[in-house]
Amino acid sequence: MQRTEIRSLATSVTDYIDSEVTVCGWVKTIRDSKALGFIELNDGTTFQNLQIVFEESKLENFKEVCKLNVGSAVSVCGSVVLTPNAKQPFEIHAAKITVEGVSAPDYPLQKKRHSLEYLRSIAHLRPRTNTFNAVFRVRSVAAYAIHKFFNDRGFVYAHTPLITGSDCEGAGDMFRVTTLDPLNPPTNEDGGVNYKEDFFEKPTSLTVSGQLEAECMALAFSNVYTFGPTFRAERSNTPRHAAEFWMIEPEIAFADLSDDMRLAEDMIKSVMGYVLDHCPDEIRFFNDFYDKTLLQRLQHIISSDFGRVTYTEAIELLIPHKDEFEYPVYWGCDLQTEHERYLTEKIFEKPVFVTDYPKEIKAFYMRLNDDNKTVAAMDCLVPGVGEIVGGSQREERLDVLLSRMKELGLREEDYSWYLDLRRYGGAKHAGFGLGFERLIMYMTAIPNIRDVIPFPRTTGSAEF
Amino acid sequence: MQRTEIRSLATSVTDYIDSEVTVCGWVKTIRDSKALGFIELNDGTTFQNLQIVFEESKLENFKEVCKLNVGSAVSVCGSVVLTPNAKQPFEIHAAKITVEGVSAPDYPLQKKRHSLEYLRSIAHLRPRTNTFNAVFRVRSVAAYAIHKFFNDRGFVYAHTPLITGSDCEGAGDMFRVTTLDPLNPPTNEDGGVNYKEDFFEKPTSLTVSGQLEAECMALAFSNVYTFGPTFRAERSNTPRHAAEFWMIEPEIAFADLSDDMRLAEDMIKSVMGYVLDHCPDEIRFFNDFYDKTLLQRLQHIISSDFGRVTYTEAIELLIPHKDEFEYPVYWGCDLQTEHERYLTEKIFEKPVFVTDYPKEIKAFYMRLNDDNKTVAAMDCLVPGVGEIVGGSQREERLDVLLSRMKELGLREEDYSWYLDLRRYGGAKHAGFGLGFERLIMYMTAIPNIRDVIPFPRTTGSAEF
Repeated sequence: MQRTEIRSLATSVTDYIDSEVTVCGWVKTIRDSKALGFIELNDGTTFQNLQIVFEESKLENFKEVCKLNVGSAVSVCGSVVLTPNAKQPFEIHAAKITVEGVSAPDYPLQKKRHSLEYLRSIAHLRPRTNTFNAVFRVRSVAAYAIHKFFNDRGFVYAHTPLITGSDCEGAGDMFRVTTLDPLNPPTNEDGGVNYKEDFFEKPTSLTVSGQLEAECMALAFSNVYTFGPTFRAERSNTPRHAAEFWMIEPEIAFADLSDDMRLAEDMIKSVMGYVLDHCPDEIRFFNDFYDKTLLQRLQHIISSDFGRVTYTEAIELLIPHKDEFEYPVYWGCDLQTEHERYLTEKIFEKPVFVTDYPKEIKAFYMRLNDDNKTVAAMDCLVPGVGEIVGGSQREERLDVLLSRMKELGLREEDYSWYLDLRRYGGAKHAGFGLGFERLIMYMTAIPNIRDVIPFPRTTGSAEF
Repeated sequence: MQRTEIRSLATSVTDYIDSEVTVCGWVKTIRDSKALGFIELNDGTTFQNLQIVFEESKLENFKEVCKLNVGSAVSVCGSVVLTPNAKQPFEIHAAKITVEGVSAPDYPLQKKRHSLEYLRSIAHLRPRTNTFNAVFRVRSVAAYAIHKFFNDRGFVYAHTPLITGSDCEGAGDMFRVTTLDPLNPPTNEDGGVNYKEDFFEKPTSLTVSGQLEAECMALAFSNVYTFGPTFRAERSNTPRHAAEFWMIEPEIAFADLSDDMRLAEDMIKSVMGYVLDHCPDEIRFFNDFYDKTLLQRLQHIISSDFGRVTYTEAIELLIPHKDEFEYPVYWGCDLQTEHERYLTEKIFEKPVFVTDYPKEIKAFYMRLNDDNKTVAAMDCLVPGVGEIVGGSQREERLDVLLSRMKELGLREEDYSWYLDLRRYGGAKHAGFGLGFERLIMYMTAIPNIRDVIPFPRTTGSAEF
């Protein structure tokens, strides 16, 4: 018999009443008293469990079923019965239960609360818990929402390379990618590594950003975005840093910083709205068990008009409160999370874009403003977190870009193709980056990045 | 004034007639005679160019515009005029043309035919050509079609790790990922590399497949898929191999090989149908300039019921034709592309699944059939290419899997988490892998994988 997913039952149970169905899934709880037993079954197609009622008088293998451990896989053939007076709206009365795979008695996910730290050590099994069932579905739905948002607007999804010979943000902590002998690499006459013998015949690393390549695509397709893995080899053991994470980087041509902010605001609201619509059970669960303000916080973001403030104005707004901060506030300082949160939570009480930062604290490719001191950069700050998006208008003027690169000691020949974009039909353009895991952490109230990635990679850890 | 994308004009031109619009884009061709000029403008939002008509009597900067080189970026304010007797359905009569960015006279994309090999050397500019405008839009639309297909069926999109400490398909050609000093790595007492000092405190590589991790997710969510980059460090300089490529790997629980084949068939048809619907201009272009049988070939696939044949039957069908092949055909041989193409093109004349291969030529995790000689594997062969999808039902029986691993010399401790999936509620499950670039090559008739990836990585080449 064709399997019916619990999701299908849950969304249109009236189609199934009094008919026989086969459901498959994993036993979350099981109990029996005398001739009657109950299984809470989850098949992962929905957050909700399905109650299975089974009776000794109907099942040949009643005793075998009663002895099943939590975690066992079963398929159940039975009839759908509405239960208007019970907690769940319907249940299955089993006519037949087939054991697909038993679960050994040492199954690590017995029915009790486990710490997130412990669950990380069994990342291959944790998707079966309520928390990770919800987290990874939200992650999946949010990813789809992002693709849908950009697709609906005609953006081209660009796959930028992961292995790179260049380094977008200047020298950074990058992973080297190599096929050379790790112990005895081939050497040159001068005693250095002979990269001519490496796979790509030069040193290569894992990318920290697809932006520069996305700019090439934007200057052909007008509107593009990337959505793929990025890497940082920073040895920072914090709840917010992973060595491998996913990033969304839109890039738009014939567009300035205002267009860029409008796009970021629209995208954030659209994705959050989509997740609220499509994962109501999951968000309610996070609201109940992780952060009682979550739902309100998300709805507030969706309904706010994001604020706009220049960095210079923001500093003026912060200075009167300087005694409340650990880090000093002055024009030229890099905003710390405490400053960002104060701005968005206390001063604006909603998301806010801070724009036009001092050029010294921003990247070489950001467009120089007429004051010659600031660049057309923007960070989007949200309550509870601080920065969630960082972007800028890009410097499209060849002469200005070249002189900025010179100031910073960047070599022209390393960026010849990037400079070509300014030689041949350059146009004003802008873009931003959104760390996908930060967004998921925000939408689930899960405090550690290790718990929003199925198999996280962090300093000293690449298990599974 | 708000910019209007050429795509919007093209899809609903009647909304714009007699109204003033601003379009932006790059000059593909420009010509003038006396007081009148014409620009073919492309903004990348659609395959089609837009004709701009400009007159000396209306433009202050007529002379400047006339001197523009191909590749220049302009914005044009003007009125939309229907041209029922011309090749294109409408054009813009310019009231104002603003030069956003000139193009230097040595712009490499002058109006003439360039070889694909040459265009690879200017990968940062080639998206502006007709071919790559079409290829990368098809790539984007196909990626969306894949996400939509799985999302519509409730599959969870799982991000499996790129950096891995394990090796799915047995020892293979993998890229090492490291932060150790390339010249003087730290060593152990025994003289080997001391990986305890590496970033992850052990040797790590770039993944060749997300399958094993996807199995963990499928045994929680029932239906999952991955869609992300994968890597092979094979030094094979062929038109079909890249070192970095994208792969789609669905994994379904409570499902067998038949379910797996049905899913693959549905997915291929759905994605091809979506691309035909959403990229008619692009596919027509490829049909006209790259392969006159393309459209017919794609439509044939969509309307065929894919065949099913066992490997054993396939060998029997091929043996009578053995003289037509370069490679020998016998039970136990690995099918070569010539054999695969003969089956799908000559014998079945449509796509065909070949199933139940000898276990010796397939991976350890494939489910052993009752004959003890073959495994529940399937390859999907399509006319013109051969294999496009490879998949299998996975071995869910712990004892059978362990004995197969022992035969192959795989160490139990290296796969403990994978084996756990069989200890705790294992269920029959299956999946397959589809190389995304192979699919794009098939749908565009572009013969070289280097030309369907924006910035390809191949042996000796990691430019841009």
